[in-house]
Amino acid sequence: WQPLTVDGEQRLRRVFKFKNFAEALAFTQRVGDLAEEADHHPALLTEWGKVTVDWWTHKIGGLHRNDFIMAAKTDRVYSS
Amino acid sequence: WQPLTVDGEQRLRRVFKFKNFAEALAFTQRVGDLAEEADHHPALLTEWGKVTVDWWTHKIGGLHRNDFIMAAKTDRVYSS
Repeated sequence: WQPLTVDGEQRLRRVFKFKNFAEALAFTQRVGDLAEEADHHPALLTEWGKVTVDWWTHKIGGLHRNDFIMAAKTDRVYSS
Repeated sequence: WQPLTVDGEQRLRRVFKFKNFAEALAFTQRVGDLAEEADHHPALLTEWGKVTVDWWTHKIGGLHRNDFIMAAKTDRVYSS
């Protein structure tokens, strides 16, 4: 996970690689389901063979402990 | 749809609005399914309440007739 700033807000970003579009899309769906359960929502950029995930807390304009927890959960979805 | 240039390649972009994250994610899934059927793949940025769709043809480094067809099909998914 890389910290970066988008529109003045700190985010955590990681790019996850896949072997085609369908697998990338399936991962987006799984991370999206995780987000809905937690009521905390990332930005998910789905492209051929990769998904770029950004976690941040818009309400505080940056990173909260919860973002790090969601990042760890995202990693777990990827490795399962 | 707006034409724009990303990494030196022309793309068509449109932002679709939704009332929450779940509806945005469902739209991403439907456009992704459309892409798989056509074997032509967009970039889909899913966020709370919106999805940004980019169509372009990487092989030619820009826009092909097919991208305009996929854009029209994406509009149809949105309005259905």
